Amino acid sequence: MKSFLIVLLLIVPSPDLFSQQSDSTVIRSIYTEALDNGKGYEWLRDLTQHIGHRLSGSPEAAKAVVWAEKLMIEAGADSVWLQKVMVPHWVRGAKEKGVIIDGSNHSQQVTITALGNSVATPDSGITAPIIEVHDFSELPLLGKENIQGKIVFYNHPFDQAFVNTFHAYGEAVEYRWSGPSEAARYGAVATVCRSMTNSTDDVPHTGAMDYNDSLPEIPCVAISTTGADLLSRIIRADKGVKFFMQMNCRMLDSATSYNVIGEIKGRSHPEEIIVNGGHLDSWDVGQGAHDDGAGVVQAVEVLRLFKTLGIKPERTVRAVAFMNEENGLRGGVTYAARIDTVKEKHIAAIESDAGGFTPMGFGLDMSEAKKLKIQSWKPLFIPYNVWSWDQGHGGADIGPMKRRLQVPQIGLAVDSQRYFDYHHSPADTFDKVNRRELLLGTATMASLTYLLAMYGL
Amino acid sequence: MKSFLIVLLLIVPSPDLFSQQSDSTVIRSIYTEALDNGKGYEWLRDLTQHIGHRLSGSPEAAKAVVWAEKLMIEAGADSVWLQKVMVPHWVRGAKEKGVIIDGSNHSQQVTITALGNSVATPDSGITAPIIEVHDFSELPLLGKENIQGKIVFYNHPFDQAFVNTFHAYGEAVEYRWSGPSEAARYGAVATVCRSMTNSTDDVPHTGAMDYNDSLPEIPCVAISTTGADLLSRIIRADKGVKFFMQMNCRMLDSATSYNVIGEIKGRSHPEEIIVNGGHLDSWDVGQGAHDDGAGVVQAVEVLRLFKTLGIKPERTVRAVAFMNEENGLRGGVTYAARIDTVKEKHIAAIESDAGGFTPMGFGLDMSEAKKLKIQSWKPLFIPYNVWSWDQGHGGADIGPMKRRLQVPQIGLAVDSQRYFDYHHSPADTFDKVNRRELLLGTATMASLTYLLAMYGL
Repeated sequence: MKSFLIVLLLIVPSPDLFSQQSDSTVIRSIYTEALDNGKGYEWLRDLTQHIGHRLSGSPEAAKAVVWAEKLMIEAGADSVWLQKVMVPHWVRGAKEKGVIIDGSNHSQQVTITALGNSVATPDSGITAPIIEVHDFSELPLLGKENIQGKIVFYNHPFDQAFVNTFHAYGEAVEYRWSGPSEAARYGAVATVCRSMTNSTDDVPHTGAMDYNDSLPEIPCVAISTTGADLLSRIIRADKGVKFFMQMNCRMLDSATSYNVIGEIKGRSHPEEIIVNGGHLDSWDVGQGAHDDGAGVVQAVEVLRLFKTLGIKPERTVRAVAFMNEENGLRGGVTYAARIDTVKEKHIAAIESDAGGFTPMGFGLDMSEAKKLKIQSWKPLFIPYNVWSWDQGHGGADIGPMKRRLQVPQIGLAVDSQRYFDYHHSPADTFDKVNRRELLLGTATMASLTYLLAMYGL
Repeated sequence: MKSFLIVLLLIVPSPDLFSQQSDSTVIRSIYTEALDNGKGYEWLRDLTQHIGHRLSGSPEAAKAVVWAEKLMIEAGADSVWLQKVMVPHWVRGAKEKGVIIDGSNHSQQVTITALGNSVATPDSGITAPIIEVHDFSELPLLGKENIQGKIVFYNHPFDQAFVNTFHAYGEAVEYRWSGPSEAARYGAVATVCRSMTNSTDDVPHTGAMDYNDSLPEIPCVAISTTGADLLSRIIRADKGVKFFMQMNCRMLDSATSYNVIGEIKGRSHPEEIIVNGGHLDSWDVGQGAHDDGAGVVQAVEVLRLFKTLGIKPERTVRAVAFMNEENGLRGGVTYAARIDTVKEKHIAAIESDAGGFTPMGFGLDMSEAKKLKIQSWKPLFIPYNVWSWDQGHGGADIGPMKRRLQVPQIGLAVDSQRYFDYHHSPADTFDKVNRRELLLGTATMASLTYLLAMYGL
């Protein structure tokens, strides 16, 4: 009897070992299908080349909603639906001009672009003396006497020494976001903000700003990094430097738009939901390829991979193409409000919104116990160079689910070196996306989703 | 007395902890200097834009030798010298043409390029029936009766499912390298080889081939991947398909060239040498930016980082710009022979020849004991996302030092997703290199060099 038992112990692998082996086989099949036959790259080509950029409220955003709905059906979702979202509708307008006027009245045009949500200048533009500051601490030192009636130029470059470029962004972006109101506090009439990028180029990078309700709303633009360097040199070399800026952007009435949602129903626990998300809207420049067409096609392709490979998840797997991440987050807020109202149980939300680059890990924002459970799966991902399981945060669109319902947050963490070269600029186009990098990200999201769908969280 | 000891134990860090803290500070300073003020990107711009591609024996290769010598002096090497190397001198010639002629005698030109070392066709070209094979096992099955007098088309695509693209290359490259002689064994008159790349594009990728001395030398070309797909479709759809190819490449007499060597003498153990290397020659298409201008500027900038940061290495740190990696490896062989003759002690050789992409680790090819010593430094590199310490091999140029003298081999391992999109093709140009990715690689090499120079191996 004893020897019989020993034989059994020798030939029957432990359940843990067995499931790990079986999981690794499934994950290998996910990566192989993605790399061999992935559709996301061609989907992204279609979105970026046939629709292009798609700011909330624009005709292109409306087209993108129809496109995403069709795509989710094609990907094999059991059901696909739209969720109505009221979005802010800001438009850039046709006029955008920035000119440096030096002390000798020589003028030189520079590349600028309005920040998202900015008010317009008067029709004829604004001309005013310009002063350069590097951070907020300089404003009270200068005081109203030196700022009143002038344009403030925030020249805060990215700190290149951060290996993760999102850390440089995090440190610099406050000058874009709240710089206009902080300058208005001291009587400034407008702001010019150095573009949020690691690269030295002549492309301005837009992005959202936010007015403080208690302060005057002043127009604000981003200037390219080469333009910022030039402006800084002229200000240092000359006295009485002025800046002319003119733009006719404006905020219209809110518009109706939609989150696009598709899902594969779970087999044994359909009431437990795992979301994969990206955002469908983009800035109104470039093609919104890395930000965030990439995340949308990745989230949708997770469904396609499950269907194509015949993986029947125990829990429900949902893809969400969120609307309005860029200038309002209304899609994420509306989604979280609805699942709270109807008491849907989301066990995890995954977002890809850091560009379609080579995946290196996940940001995990959740309880320590849940984090440990997910981190126990790390060995399954090492063959795919996905090694870093404590990077950054989840994602903007899934954030409201955390704040309202404590839904565990997972962000796909990718190699960030090139992201801010393209981010929010005319350079964010399809040709900047590498097919394999994009599809490796897709497979990484799908593999984690598979484990969450099998084992819960 | 006892309490005094306890206090001492509490306040004095262990020597190990102390040195790790101090090492981490030095390494942080290396990465910061590289990312903030790195010169390698501008050096690479200069090499690629002002000299361009530089095949062994060409006037451009000669210019590159002068350039590298000047660069090493500028970088702050204590001494710089040239080492004479006799190199093969193959030239492409002006004629390169490939045409598919279908069964109805319609012809369609396709993008081809001669493989390096190939003989020419007759002046008027070769026209012959073409047959497609996918791997070598098909040749004996077809036999002489089906191959004699024909052109063999090797259509062996990259296996996209490999996460490390070098594995796909390793599997496919034998059709480029020994395919011509293997086909000649069965009487083929020429070969056409599908380009070695992950991408689907109309750019042919060249690279070295090698004739088997006992078999006829037949001309051989690479065809672009879109061209290969087209040719395959036509062959499958039609009978009697022929191919016309014409090129006037040829091998000239061997030429004199040089390895370029610079070093910083070690303080306490000058006789122990650590080499950082890349290769100065490139294929005669594109600009040799990733392959391997990147590796050369990285190796040289290791010296600059030491000088600029005032790091005085205990052991000698040497940069070598090897000549003739692409079609002969004479630089690497000559270097190894010389250090054997003069009994120089090389404790480690590091090579960067996988493109200037984001570094992820090192390939370590050495004894287990030495490997363990290097791997013990891994925690120092995790902040820089350098996590994988058992990737691939060292490098081609440093290989002869291993074979002759068992010098430990270290290869800088980088994210390989994009490498073969550019490799050996007109697409390998400066604009494909990202400044931060290149400089992160430089800092990674310099940091490991610093540890080797401090602690030996």
